[in-house]
Amino acid sequence: MDIKEAIERRKSEIERELIKSFDRVWEERLKNAMTHLPSAGGKRLRPALAMISADAVKKGEGKRALPFGITLEIIHNFTLVHDDIMDNDDLRRGVPTVHKVFDEATAINAGDAMFALAFNVLSRLDVDDSILREILDDVSGMVLGIAEGQQMDMDFEERMDIDPEEYLEMIEKKTALMFINAAKNGARIAGAPPSVYEKMAEYGKYMGLAFQIWDDFLDLTADEKTLGKPVGSDIRNGKKTLMVVYTLQRLEVPDRERFLNILGNEKASDEEVSEAIELMKKVGAIQDAESLALEYADRAKRALGVLHESEEKEALLDLVDYVIRRKY
Amino acid sequence: MDIKEAIERRKSEIERELIKSFDRVWEERLKNAMTHLPSAGGKRLRPALAMISADAVKKGEGKRALPFGITLEIIHNFTLVHDDIMDNDDLRRGVPTVHKVFDEATAINAGDAMFALAFNVLSRLDVDDSILREILDDVSGMVLGIAEGQQMDMDFEERMDIDPEEYLEMIEKKTALMFINAAKNGARIAGAPPSVYEKMAEYGKYMGLAFQIWDDFLDLTADEKTLGKPVGSDIRNGKKTLMVVYTLQRLEVPDRERFLNILGNEKASDEEVSEAIELMKKVGAIQDAESLALEYADRAKRALGVLHESEEKEALLDLVDYVIRRKY
Repeated sequence: MDIKEAIERRKSEIERELIKSFDRVWEERLKNAMTHLPSAGGKRLRPALAMISADAVKKGEGKRALPFGITLEIIHNFTLVHDDIMDNDDLRRGVPTVHKVFDEATAINAGDAMFALAFNVLSRLDVDDSILREILDDVSGMVLGIAEGQQMDMDFEERMDIDPEEYLEMIEKKTALMFINAAKNGARIAGAPPSVYEKMAEYGKYMGLAFQIWDDFLDLTADEKTLGKPVGSDIRNGKKTLMVVYTLQRLEVPDRERFLNILGNEKASDEEVSEAIELMKKVGAIQDAESLALEYADRAKRALGVLHESEEKEALLDLVDYVIRRKY
Repeated sequence: MDIKEAIERRKSEIERELIKSFDRVWEERLKNAMTHLPSAGGKRLRPALAMISADAVKKGEGKRALPFGITLEIIHNFTLVHDDIMDNDDLRRGVPTVHKVFDEATAINAGDAMFALAFNVLSRLDVDDSILREILDDVSGMVLGIAEGQQMDMDFEERMDIDPEEYLEMIEKKTALMFINAAKNGARIAGAPPSVYEKMAEYGKYMGLAFQIWDDFLDLTADEKTLGKPVGSDIRNGKKTLMVVYTLQRLEVPDRERFLNILGNEKASDEEVSEAIELMKKVGAIQDAESLALEYADRAKRALGVLHESEEKEALLDLVDYVIRRKY
């Protein structure tokens, strides 16, 4: 089964449970602010991944992982509500952001309430109490890690001397941690032993890293029609991607000066953006990022060797292909 | 033992554990933002209350309740960090607020990270796993309730038709829930049965309600020297206290119009503030709020009837007197 179908099969159940989880919020304006983003759609990739991972360990256990998946989806949405305030973004999933529809104070408060609700849903997870304790440790550590990744990302905006290792740590925290948790604890909820769920964590890690690196790679290599935005917009925005990190580390003056003049210049012409991309290619930055993404994808797939054959395992393999299949 | 000494005896242990809990935060700027407010001091009333409640149930169990107390203290501080952004306040505990020292994005992120850390500390609580599950439900429900209370408080700013019952629900959520949790789960961690810890919840509820009502009562009845701020500043700020809620419900035109002209007028003269206070007295609003606070204080004390005699019980009784002892 491909990943698209595996998600589709679970989506209506996920969305029903997700919306139902907000029933215990009584204050009307707060509830409206909390449900605004979750109701606006989304791929539901994280809860689906938790459920598919559970079913891959033991068919039929996906349903038991559902509340955990809802916890992750609410946390994912809460981080987006707060990120949009931090970045002062006006749109998300095609609709105005929570702080634009309501106000900033309500959006901060709604994010906090979503975070609390996520842990409240978790308390009703149908697993042994001792496993719940471990998952509480994991999920709370995950949110702390995401906040660290977010802070690193903000700090990087001012820095030109980022080490590739630091960069990878940042995206592991900011992006991959959620996938690590979904795959690992989805498997654990289905009764997987540590030898299995630690491999699932590895799967989530490398899939998440490949996903983020590929996403940035596409921005420079896909065409405008595929991207739905101008090629190289990350360069104009000054985004510190792995490719930019490599480039800043490898370029010498005067090329480095030239590159820094273009990076983050919102008014850079298409010719200048092309020039920056050529400089990145010259030092092998784009090629190396592509290779690393492919290597990570390979590692993610190999980690799944621990699973017996099933259509859910196929879907998990296909998800890896999906994140690097999106074409340039 | 009086409450002051009971807190003092536990304070250094609380502060040591509190600071230690931030050790697992690695990102420097984030850690600095997270520790800014907790390091600036505070009464440590909530963790102390959890420990004293545990010791009151079974001498020596206070130490077991310490991580739970740290969870509450971190949550309390996180709500203050976010509240200060929402209210755009510059100072807290005599030092600049987190969003002023760092920036708003970092303050939002640091608050989120503190929230996550609080639940991470909770996962290491030394109680049966089944009790941890119940406490997780309680604490996450508490934070959700606090967010609802905060939202009600913000919504009240625009409203002139608040029902006293609604007002009491708001302060029960925004202020009393933390005390309910501290007393109830402190007792539960020490092994109290439901018949005891539910009474401790009642104690926390009425003590918290009395505390908030008395705080607002003092603003109108204490002298400037005692308050450290001008008498009636709540009237100039338009704060919807229980006394204002009663007054708005009871005054008839033209007095009601006159009162509304003064309420929320930052430039109101001392004479006008006195006039507003006279109108509040005329309809019995101040007297009724005082009576209610005293009644709640009494209920809080009576709930402690479930405890055997001990110096910790004395301290809990003294805490009730303390919240209404502060003089006018």
